[in-house]
This record gives sequence, C-alpha cells and structure tokens, in this order.
Amino acid sequence: MSRKLRVGMVGGGGPANFFGGPHRRGILIDNSAELTAGALRSRPEEAIASAKELFFARGYGDWQSMIAEEAKRDDGIDYVTIVTPNDAHFGPALAAAEAGMGVLCEKPLVMNLDEAKRLYQAVKAKGVPFVVAYTYTAFPMVMMARAMVADGKVGEVRKVEAWYPQGWLAGSRETTADAAGQKQASWRVDPSKSGASGCGGDIGTHAYEFVRFVAGLTATRLRARLKTFVPGRALDDDFTVLAELDNGGIATITASQVTIGAQNDNGFRIVGTEGTLEWSITDHNTLKYYRGGEPVSLYRLGGMYTYFPSSITPYIRVPEGHPEGFHEALANLHRCLEWQIRSKTLGESVPDAMPLPGIEDGVAGMAFIEAAVQSGRQDGEWVEVPKVG
Amino acid sequence: MSRKLRVGMVGGGGPANFFGGPHRRGILIDNSAELTAGALRSRPEEAIASAKELFFARGYGDWQSMIAEEAKRDDGIDYVTIVTPNDAHFGPALAAAEAGMGVLCEKPLVMNLDEAKRLYQAVKAKGVPFVVAYTYTAFPMVMMARAMVADGKVGEVRKVEAWYPQGWLAGSRETTADAAGQKQASWRVDPSKSGASGCGGDIGTHAYEFVRFVAGLTATRLRARLKTFVPGRALDDDFTVLAELDNGGIATITASQVTIGAQNDNGFRIVGTEGTLEWSITDHNTLKYYRGGEPVSLYRLGGMYTYFPSSITPYIRVPEGHPEGFHEALANLHRCLEWQIRSKTLGESVPDAMPLPGIEDGVAGMAFIEAAVQSGRQDGEWVEVPKVG
Amino acid sequence: MSRKLRVGMVGGGGPANFFGGPHRRGILIDNSAELTAGALRSRPEEAIASAKELFFARGYGDWQSMIAEEAKRDDGIDYVTIVTPNDAHFGPALAAAEAGMGVLCEKPLVMNLDEAKRLYQAVKAKGVPFVVAYTYTAFPMVMMARAMVADGKVGEVRKVEAWYPQGWLAGSRETTADAAGQKQASWRVDPSKSGASGCGGDIGTHAYEFVRFVAGLTATRLRARLKTFVPGRALDDDFTVLAELDNGGIATITASQVTIGAQNDNGFRIVGTEGTLEWSITDHNTLKYYRGGEPVSLYRLGGMYTYFPSSITPYIRVPEGHPEGFHEALANLHRCLEWQIRSKTLGESVPDAMPLPGIEDGVAGMAFIEAAVQSGRQDGEWVEVPKVG
Amino acid sequence: MSRKLRVGMVGGGGPANFFGGPHRRGILIDNSAELTAGALRSRPEEAIASAKELFFARGYGDWQSMIAEEAKRDDGIDYVTIVTPNDAHFGPALAAAEAGMGVLCEKPLVMNLDEAKRLYQAVKAKGVPFVVAYTYTAFPMVMMARAMVADGKVGEVRKVEAWYPQGWLAGSRETTADAAGQKQASWRVDPSKSGASGCGGDIGTHAYEFVRFVAGLTATRLRARLKTFVPGRALDDDFTVLAELDNGGIATITASQVTIGAQNDNGFRIVGTEGTLEWSITDHNTLKYYRGGEPVSLYRLGGMYTYFPSSITPYIRVPEGHPEGFHEALANLHRCLEWQIRSKTLGESVPDAMPLPGIEDGVAGMAFIEAAVQSGRQDGEWVEVPKVG
Repeated sequence: MSRKLRVGMVGGGGPANFFGGPHRRGILIDNSAELTAGALRSRPEEAIASAKELFFARGYGDWQSMIAEEAKRDDGIDYVTIVTPNDAHFGPALAAAEAGMGVLCEKPLVMNLDEAKRLYQAVKAKGVPFVVAYTYTAFPMVMMARAMVADGKVGEVRKVEAWYPQGWLAGSRETTADAAGQKQASWRVDPSKSGASGCGGDIGTHAYEFVRFVAGLTATRLRARLKTFVPGRALDDDFTVLAELDNGGIATITASQVTIGAQNDNGFRIVGTEGTLEWSITDHNTLKYYRGGEPVSLYRLGGMYTYFPSSITPYIRVPEGHPEGFHEALANLHRCLEWQIRSKTLGESVPDAMPLPGIEDGVAGMAFIEAAVQSGRQDGEWVEVPKVG
Repeated sequence: MSRKLRVGMVGGGGPANFFGGPHRRGILIDNSAELTAGALRSRPEEAIASAKELFFARGYGDWQSMIAEEAKRDDGIDYVTIVTPNDAHFGPALAAAEAGMGVLCEKPLVMNLDEAKRLYQAVKAKGVPFVVAYTYTAFPMVMMARAMVADGKVGEVRKVEAWYPQGWLAGSRETTADAAGQKQASWRVDPSKSGASGCGGDIGTHAYEFVRFVAGLTATRLRARLKTFVPGRALDDDFTVLAELDNGGIATITASQVTIGAQNDNGFRIVGTEGTLEWSITDHNTLKYYRGGEPVSLYRLGGMYTYFPSSITPYIRVPEGHPEGFHEALANLHRCLEWQIRSKTLGESVPDAMPLPGIEDGVAGMAFIEAAVQSGRQDGEWVEVPKVG
Repeated sequence: MSRKLRVGMVGGGGPANFFGGPHRRGILIDNSAELTAGALRSRPEEAIASAKELFFARGYGDWQSMIAEEAKRDDGIDYVTIVTPNDAHFGPALAAAEAGMGVLCEKPLVMNLDEAKRLYQAVKAKGVPFVVAYTYTAFPMVMMARAMVADGKVGEVRKVEAWYPQGWLAGSRETTADAAGQKQASWRVDPSKSGASGCGGDIGTHAYEFVRFVAGLTATRLRARLKTFVPGRALDDDFTVLAELDNGGIATITASQVTIGAQNDNGFRIVGTEGTLEWSITDHNTLKYYRGGEPVSLYRLGGMYTYFPSSITPYIRVPEGHPEGFHEALANLHRCLEWQIRSKTLGESVPDAMPLPGIEDGVAGMAFIEAAVQSGRQDGEWVEVPKVG
Repeated sequence: MSRKLRVGMVGGGGPANFFGGPHRRGILIDNSAELTAGALRSRPEEAIASAKELFFARGYGDWQSMIAEEAKRDDGIDYVTIVTPNDAHFGPALAAAEAGMGVLCEKPLVMNLDEAKRLYQAVKAKGVPFVVAYTYTAFPMVMMARAMVADGKVGEVRKVEAWYPQGWLAGSRETTADAAGQKQASWRVDPSKSGASGCGGDIGTHAYEFVRFVAGLTATRLRARLKTFVPGRALDDDFTVLAELDNGGIATITASQVTIGAQNDNGFRIVGTEGTLEWSITDHNTLKYYRGGEPVSLYRLGGMYTYFPSSITPYIRVPEGHPEGFHEALANLHRCLEWQIRSKTLGESVPDAMPLPGIEDGVAGMAFIEAAVQSGRQDGEWVEVPKVG
C-alpha cells in the first residue's frame, strides 16, 4: 500500500454515541487507514473539540464544510463514513457522492424510499464506491454461507428464516434510562429521526439483508405486522414479516426490541431442496450445514481449514484457530500498560482498572515450566516449584 | 488524553509472522496509541523496509539501536512491545526496562528461570510498567471470574482445572507445511528458540496463568508428563501437570498440540467449597457460575448488564449486547470500501474479495421497510415491494 | 398401588408402525400398568396375531369388539390408548368415553372441529378422564415453564414464539422411501386420513399447544400461510401462523416438514413484560430464564435442585442429575444380556448387536481401581495395572 | 419372541433406593421381560413385602433362597440383576453364575480384585452370559464412537481423556442430607460397603471403561491421586489418574464428587493420528468427529440417518429424530391419565400432579387448525378462531 487511506467521519463524536467508537476501531484496526477529517457532532464548536480530542487530523463544524473543503485538497479524504441517526444520512451521503468521494453509510440507508432513489441515482451517476453498514453480512461465516448458497450447496432455496430479537427496549428506556441510554433509545423511537418504522428500520432491515446477501433473493410482496408493546411509544418495537421471494420461495423476517434476554441475537436459516444452512451471531465463528442422511457439518473460522474460498480469506485476520474477540483481548493488554504509563509518565487520570499479568506472572510461568520440565525428565516425580519475587 | 502513546515494536514484521498483526491491531484499535518505532525483522535492511511498509513513523535495523535512539528523543517511544520467538525476548525486554521504558512482552517471558530472575530484578529496580501477554486473562469474562473468586463467590478454592488443547501440530507441520506454516511450527519445536518445553512453554503457561490470575493461587509442587507424539520432534507436543497449590488445593493443567479438532480451546473450571466458575474461549462472552441447589447463572458480556465491577468496564468496548467479533465485521465493511478506492483511485492491486452490501442493498432495505410499514398500517394486507435499480 | 392398571390399545401393531412402540414403553416403564387388551391392526386376523406377539393378555379383531367385551368384564380395561392415523381417532375415542373408560388419544384429536365438538360433549357428559398426546408438554422442564409463567415470573405475556421444524418430508418420501418410510409419510399427506392440514395438523398443533399449556393463552384470530413445497403433495408441508391472543399479546406458530437438518426440533419462547422463558427439545433438560440486568438462569433437570414444585416432581424419574436417555441405556444393558440368553437358552434368532461390557470389563475395572488406590497411597508413584483374564 | 424373559432382582427395593427403579424401567420398557422374582431388601419380611408392592411375581426373603428356589423351577428366572451396594455383589453374582443363570451386575464389579478373579473363573467355567452395568457405554452414540474407532476413523489412538465430575458430595451429605440422601451418600463413603476407593470406584471406573470400550485399550501402569476434600470422610471424593495404555498411548481419567454444578457429566475425547472423537452425556444424542482441514462432523441419533451400523440399530428405539427423553414424556402422559383413574375409580391416593393436556386442548387444536386452513385458503386473511367448551 502506497499510503493509508484518509477517512472523514460524520457524526459519532458525542459522549453518548453508540457507533462512532466501533467504526473508528474498524477503520484503524488494520493499520491501513487514518482518521483524517471529522464533523462529529451537531454543534460546530463541539464538533471541532470532539475531532481534536479523538485525534482526527482536521476537525470541521459541519459536514457541509468538511466535504467542500476536503474535496479541494490534494490530500483530501478518500471516503466519508456516516454514523448519524437516520435523518442525517441523506445529506452527507448525497454531498459526498456528488463530490466523487466514497461513502460508507450506516443503515437503514435514509429516511424513506424517495430519498433512497435520489441517492441511488447520484451514486450511480458518479460511480463512487458505496457500502451500507449491514454489518452482520461481514462476518466471515456469513460470507461463507453466501458462497455456499451460490455454489448450489442447498439446491433451490425454498425458505429463508431471518431473525433479530433484542430486549433493550422492553421497558420505556427512552424516558427512564440514564442519559446515554435515553439518547440511544429516544431517537430510535422518534419517527422524525428514525423514519416510519422503529424496530423494522433499525434491525428488521438487517434481517432482510440476510435474505438478499446470503440467499441472493429479493422480496416481491409481503404481509407485515408492526406492533408497539410499550405504552406511549410512537413506533413499532416488534416487527413480523412474511414475504414471497422472487424465486417462488418464502421468507419470515422477524425483529423485536422487547424480547427480554435477547441481546442482539440475529441469524438466519436458509432451507433449500438439497440442504440447509444456519448461522447465529451467538456462535458467529460457526456455520452449520445440514443434508439429508449425512452428519451435520460445522464450518468454523480458523486458518487450518482450507475450505474458505479466496474471496473470503482477505476478510479473515485472526491467527489460526483464534476467535475474533482475540483482538480486543490483546488491546486490553496494551491498554493496561498504556494506562500505567499515562498515569505515571503523563500524569493523566486513568480508569482504576483490574491489573493484568505483570512481570511476576511472567516469572511464575518460567518457574512452573522449569519445574514441569524437570519432573517430566524424572518420569513424573514430584518437583518443588521455585519461588521467585 | 493529551496525546497518543508512542509504541515501539520488536519483531512481528516478517511475511510469515503470526502475532505482529494482532498486536498492531491491539495497539491501534482504540485510537489511543500509534506505531512510532519498529525493529521488526532480524535482517536490518528488511527490518527498515518492513517498518516503512507497515507505516511505522521510524524504522530501525535492530532493537538495540531502536531503544538507544528512542531513549534520547523527546518524542521517543513510551513502551516496547516484543513479539519475537522466545529466545529473543530477554535482550530487548532488559534493555527497554533499563532505559526506563514500559514493556509488553509475549509469553513465555524468556528462555529459562535464570533469565526471568534477572529481568525481574531490572524491572523492579527501574520500576517500569510491565505486562506479559497472557492474552486470555484479558477477556472480560475471565476478569469477571477473577473478581468473583476474589469476592468469595466460590468459597475456598479446592481444585482448578485449566486446559489448552490445540491440534495444529498433530502432523509434522514443521517439515511438511507451506513456508508460513513451517515457520510458525519450526521455532516452536526447536529448543534453541523455544526453550526446554514446547507445548508446555507455548500454551501450558497460558493454562497455568488461569490458576494464578483467576484463582489467585500458585503451584507449590507438581508432577508433570511431557510427551512427544510426533516422531522426530525435539520437544514435547503434549503436556500434563498435576500441581498442589499454596492454599492446599490442587490443579490439573493440561495442554496439547496434537488434539485434532481443538483449535485453540483454552479454558478453566474453578471448583470451590461454595460454587464453581467455568469459562471456555469457545464461548468467551459467557461465564458460568454454579451453586448447589440453584439454577446455573450465565454472566454475559453486554452493557445492559449491571453486574460488572468498575474495574472491568474500562476493558469492555462492544456496544450493548454485541459480541466482540463485531469490530472485525465493521472493519471488513471499511476494508471492502477501501479496496474499491485503492483499486480505482490509487491503482493498487487489491484482493478479489467478496463484495459487501452496496447502494442497491441500501435501497432494497428502504423498499422493504416502506412496504412493511404500509402492510402494517393495513392490518397485514399483502403489499408489493417496490422494485428499484 | 392395589394393582396395575389395565390398558387397551387401538392401533400401533403393524410392522411399520411409528408410535405403538413408544406408547407401550410409556405404559410399561413405571411398572404400574399392563397391556391387557389390543385391537392393534385393521385386519382382524392380523390384529389378533399382533396382540399375541406383543404379549397383550387379550387380542381383539377390532376396537368395537374390544370396547364392548372389555366393558362387560370385571377385570376389563381401565382406559384406551389410541395410536391410529387421525381418521381413526374419533370412533374408538367416542365409544370408549361412552363406555365410561378413560382415553389417551394421539393428536390431532380428530379430523375436524365438528367431530371434536361431538367427542367433547360425550367426554364431558360421561366425566371420563381424557388425555391428548401433546407429548412435548410432558417434558418436566416444559411443565416448569408453565409453573413459572403461572407464578408471574415473566410478568404479562406479550409474545409467544412456538416452532416445530422437521426435515423428513423434504423429498417425496411418500413415493420413494422404503415401505416403512412410505407408510409413515403417505397417510400424513393424504387428506382423507390426515385431515385438512398436513404439516399444521401433524405438528403445528403441537406448537400451538405450547401457547395454551405453557403460556396459558388461546388464539382469538389468526393469519395463516400453508404452503406445499414438494410437487404432487396434496397437503401443506410448511405452516406459518400469526395469531392474536386472548390477553392482547401475539404469537407466531411455525411448523415445517421440509427443513432439512431439523429432526424434530420443537420449542418455544415466551416473552413477557418482566422476563422471557425459552425451551428447546434439543436441550430438553434445560429451561432458560432471562430477566433484564440479571445473569441468565438455567433450570436443569435433576434431583439436587430444590426448585421444582411438588406438582412436577411426580413426573421426574431420573436419579439425581441423570439425563432422561439414561433409562434407554439401562434397557440396552438388559437387552444385551437378554439377547445372549434368548439365543443360547431359547434358541431364538436375535440381532447381531454390539456386545456391551461383560465380566472382563468388570474385572478390568477392579484391577484399575486396585492399582489406583495403591498409587494414591504411595503419593502417585507408578503402579502396574494387574492383568487378568 | 416365544415368551418374555424372567428376571430376578437382588436389592433395589428400599424406599431410599437409587437404582432399583431405573433397572426395573430398563427391564420393562421393551415389553420383552418381566419381573419374576425379587429379593429386594436385606430384612426378609421387608424384602417379601417390597416384592409384592412392586408387582414381582414371586418375592423372597434373601437372594440365597431366591437363587436356590428359582433354579429348581421349570419357569425359573433366566437371569439375576444385582443392584445392591458394592459389598453385596459378589455373593449373588457367584451363586447365580454357579446356578447357570445369567447375571447383570452393577459396577464396580465387586469389592476387590481377588473377588473379581474368583467371580471371573466361575463365570467362565459355567459360560453364563454376564453384563456389567457400565451404563454409559450403552448410549447409542458411545457405541457409534466405538465402531468408528474400530473402523480406523481416528487412526492410531494417541490419547484418551475420560472424565466424570459430579458435585453432589461437595458437602457432608452423608451426615446432613435427608434420609434418602444420607443413605445414598453414606454407603458410598464407607470402605466396608464401597471398597478401597470412593469416587474412583463409584465413577472413576465408568470413566476408565470409556478407555476400554470406546478406544479398545487397557491401562498398563498408572499414577493416581486420590484426594478427600470433605473433612471426616473416609474415602476419596476426587480422583485423578494418568495412565499408559497398551498401544503406547496415554490416558487421563478423572472423576470428582465435589465439582459443584457438575451433575453427572461424564464423557470422553479420543485423540488419534487421523482424527478425534468427542462425546459428553450432556449432549448424549450427538457424537463429534474432527479431522484436520475438514468441517466438524456431528453424528446425531435419529432414524433418518443411515450411518449407523447394523450392530447398533437394534439398540435404538426412538422414532426418527426424537430424543431419548421422549419415552419418559409419553410415560408422563400415561401416568397423568392413570392417576386420574386411580383416584377416581380405585379410590387410591395419588400425587397432586400438574394436569397435562385434556379434551379441551384437543378441541382447541382442532379449532386452531380449522381456522388456519381457512385463512390459508384465503391467502392469509384474518380468520376468527372458533371458541369451544
């Protein structure tokens, strides 16, 4: 790579923000892109302060100026990522596309189909790269499912079941949670910020994308029930759809925000004439493949397994056999050391976080191994473990 | 934070390297530290080229010069992270500590107990922050287990079972795998690079750290069996220890590199007089807590749950209810867009990777929601889904 | 108990019969009832032969004569169990009820609602005990769920999801399977034997009973989609219902016979204002209970656990902590010995079944323990295991 | 079958008895054997009363007279099943064998190796069929594992891990539980009734039998640690063995009675040069098979699957795809009806057990299906569900 890519971000800077942090992690994790420009909050002065605090190279008061200014620079941003509430997707996405920039936009795309069509035309006219954050399609085993469907492994698709239950809005969180909780809840149940559907727009669209991305099919007509369980809420918090698909099959697409105990448990089952594929985010490193009369096959993430097509391997970054949370664990080790240094050297205030293993643990490991090797050589005789430190 | 922390890295730059990438991801993911200095490979010219290619601010030909030069600078590195094979931990760790730098060192700490003691004295003398990469202690639910043991939730610990089976060395991978596979395998089975124990040093130490970190106990004496199953291998590839602990309890600590089918499946069970805690990396977002006569309690990662002590919450970065692989999924969305831009704008060669959802998917989602809302308002009547694009 | 109960059976005697065997096991397993009278097949001579072969005390050529004759006897049957296809439930059930006998009838109850009403009136008029074989309600953890709902543990029920996917009819088994397979398939897809719905009547009713039995609710109106995927089949093989419930909540009730890989995987989720209960037959010894902000609670079958109400404990027969398949395992030991005896002593032809542990294994176990005890007393020194036999 | 087999039982009749009931269920469940003779308790008058109460055809005051008398009869018992504590196995087993009867004996076989040898010689001399109740070998998926090992599916066995943790003796149950609990606990911790090892003899032998039965291997020498955690207990309540096997491989065999939360969770992992097999009773319908580079294969119980060899199918009695607890669920339906009849007709006292589905539920199911069929025919229009009863 000749250089890191330069990324601009719209939204994602406030203290109660939900997805700005995860997107920044996604941008930075591979050491291939940098946080160049940010218009991170709605009030200009806060936006500029937030960009500085979050180490963006350049801060802007609003996305309009960011896109305009960056478009003029030789070292301007390559793409814009949009992590605002739904009502603030259309403007920056359209402006960026028209400025010839790439766009990575949170879902649902915009507020309504009319905006969607206008954005679609601009994107197509300019030919800019565009990605929608249907994040669950980006798990490697979901890609694997898509590849297997495309490869005929389930035969003709008869039925797609896609689900996405959550429980966090089972109570009136928009009025009773703490400030951060309220903020996340309140715009999602506000039609002026979220659009015509609450639960359906926020997470039902994720479930529907499994139909499109994995099964490669599209709904032609549907019956829907949108229900609001929590009194006083303006939008649906439970969403059930039965759809007919363009290949003659059918789909059930269900989503809920009131299913207590469901965290974020999306998944799907693709039933075909020859087999079934099943995936759930609760075991996201595994894809289940069923055929009649055969043992169930579990495809798992991990480099020893040679069954991944080359279109998926670039998306796999964990070392052989490791789960994906591994990177966060490594990050925790680095943060633990970093906090010690920040506190001691830079005099900063840091969290009073649990100490992770230090030099004593390293030494103890060596003492353990030394004793084990000695015992092993003596056919398992008892050996004292040396005490150090 | 006043500034990002400046990190130096030793090792981790070669094409077959295993842990350099994950450590860089861990350093960068939180937007709080940067890759400042690197001595990433053993040959000086390759080391310097690698640092440039991986966007380190400053490249060095060897760790000696890196530590010496950085120690002189006002903007020198805050800490060194060491990701070399075991025989190359001691030198840079000692030098960094003596230069007053922090150290994050891969495990096992060094080659033998003697080196460990010397390093320990230097670290203690200088008072530098030091973290050992017992990475599995850094999963939030492992920390939770430690906090619960410390809080008396299992009573007095009677027994610790810690395990770490792998299967990747079930065959003679050090001679038969591809180049990258051979490289990972070959130093691990070479006593001059790995130390006196292969399987025990590489992963048995991880299992033993569960005894120390989670149960807070230390082995006082032990019986060990180190077995080499694959003909011609110089070090153990299977490792079984029975240990007595300093509180009178006992532990079994087992590790294996020949357990076909085990990917990297470490975990532990802590059995006490009042209850049992159990964790496995194969379901790393969950901690199981058993007591007599009560339902089993499953503690799960996710912000809705108020049971995490404040010493752990700084280590949790996933949004409410999301699994930790979520960040990698977001990264894949960004990479997908990035590769399109790199290919199109920068003319770079990029992987022929599976396309993730684009503008068409975003539009289709809006069409779906619009139809669903309309059907919902009509008490579930059939509604056609508009076709767009 | 003063005596064993005397049971009459209608149907269940043919070589391809599916449920006769399981019902006989259910009758006999507790040593409290006996197989007294049978009208087990449709042709009289086969019926009488079958009753003899299956060790019924008295065989009859048809259910009419069985009920008439038994009703006259002092030692006549106490109840009739009906395991015929759906079209042959109504007759014997009505006759038995009118004769004052108890009835245990397979589901769905009869062929249509009209028959159901007539039977209902007869049963009520006579006041006879009557049980419908909604077998899945009889798993102890399903009863536990019912008790917890009744006890307010989920608050007010908002939503019930009940499911029952199978895959065995994904192909045209009614024409292509072996004779036994065809027999099971063919009447289920024949409206004259099965009723107006195939998949819905056969297994959708099981799923609906979870709504009634566990949640204690009844559907007031519904939307249904019955789909036939396999060409040439006369009845639905896939069944989806959205229902409104009498407490204002809603339910989704889904069943399928074409979901390849699903064996018989029924289950439910009951979502209330205060919590959620979830059960699946694939882990039938466990009931999951979710509440906001708390660890998940897993209730498990096993006598150590004191949380079962006294209305459920009479239904639990496994010893402390054992799974329910345990009885079948014990039965296999007895059968293994029995087959040896039948072959050797009675000269009967028996299956060439895998030998289970014999005297050599018993002796080897003693040798193992003796060596282990000796080694244990010697602080773990190596001890040879004696060879015997 | 010409007749049912005639079974005699020794022990298993007292009110606190643990395994008498399960063995009777195992004998009766297949309608192929009957309870002919019993010497069920130690005091003669109680033994005779117990046999009557449990519907044995003939009751005896002690096993000596039972074996002597039955041996003389033309319709005498075919075999004896022995379910007494360990110290009372040898006598009846030897006597039965010498009388030419078959024997099914609980494990561990006898009190010590000397008794075992004597019994072995008698059994061999007489050539009587003999089965030891290593019950966990009799799960069909354990048999499947044995068949797969024998068929070379794991290659040469390198390592067997066999485990059996329980938690029920974590406290001093032998002195503090209720009467039934005390009885089960107290003989197991009494060397005069249990033998030289408590935990090892009671459940360690089960784990060792996985080595023999599944892997087909035998320990040649071993190191053992037997530990007593609960103060005042005379026998081990925790048991750890490392063994060398006759093929050069090794085994770890662990058992515990103090692992709180473990119910009865035995299982094994067989690691070979070509693959690994893994089974746990906690998911006893599934066998996991791992090979390098391939998806994991899950073998599951259920008749659709054609992979079972003919030596195993005679041991499988559940209908296609059903779990083994299914028989108990059916039995619960029968008991529910039976209790109604016993109470009403026979005037007996019966448990106040939860009512299972009755005629109302049967009718409601028909109403539901009728509405669903009508809605299905009307393309999913709302249909009212008729109210009945």
